[in-house]
Amino acid sequence: MIVRDFKHIVENERERVTSDARWTSVRMLLADDKMGFSFHVTFLEAGSEHTFEYKNHFESVYCMQGTGSITDLATGETHYIRPGVMYALDKHDRHILRAEDELVMACCFNPPVTGTEVHREDGSYAAPEEIEA
Amino acid sequence: MIVRDFKHIVENERERVTSDARWTSVRMLLADDKMGFSFHVTFLEAGSEHTFEYKNHFESVYCMQGTGSITDLATGETHYIRPGVMYALDKHDRHILRAEDELVMACCFNPPVTGTEVHREDGSYAAPEEIEA
Repeated sequence: MIVRDFKHIVENERERVTSDARWTSVRMLLADDKMGFSFHVTFLEAGSEHTFEYKNHFESVYCMQGTGSITDLATGETHYIRPGVMYALDKHDRHILRAEDELVMACCFNPPVTGTEVHREDGSYAAPEEIEA
Repeated sequence: MIVRDFKHIVENERERVTSDARWTSVRMLLADDKMGFSFHVTFLEAGSEHTFEYKNHFESVYCMQGTGSITDLATGETHYIRPGVMYALDKHDRHILRAEDELVMACCFNPPVTGTEVHREDGSYAAPEEIEA
């Protein structure tokens, strides 16, 4: 059994915390935990806007706190986000995520993120085999 | 892209809500969403105690609200649960989960739950192939 505490990670395990200009992600579970998915608690700064496209991953995102919106760039459709709303990128959907207030999201990735990925220019993470190569 | 709202599910999609005597689980993502995992928001009643052993699944559980504890029945170790604490059953660990106050948990299962499983006497869910058979 693995037991981890968000607070302990933030204070003592900074290698599990990844930040970009306007978001921070606390990696509660990563690929080496061998669960077959990774689990992150991600904070998106109030007023920020992000374009992501996880070409190599499925991701689900559950809003725990905050408000914002997501636009599906394939359809142009925009969905409002508030606590209790979840989106799942089952088609590796390219999208824009906007935080009105700070968003706090529970994110699951399949395949699991290793923790060493960086967002590439196209908003994606490399596939596991590209990282290993 | 799949977008689902917890509130809408609770009010209008009762087939996505599963209850046992002292817990309720709102299935935000299930196997037929083809994400490779399922995602549930689960409520455990204040004062309740549960013995589970997911012999056929990996499960991670992130506490969003409430307090309680988990005892690993293999080691006898007990961990306190409060918001921000996550446990992951990477060894299909048999465990007792106790809610002091009502616990609200974000749960991921791999393989994904289909939504038709029931807890068996041993606290497990059937494996996907047992359900299909």
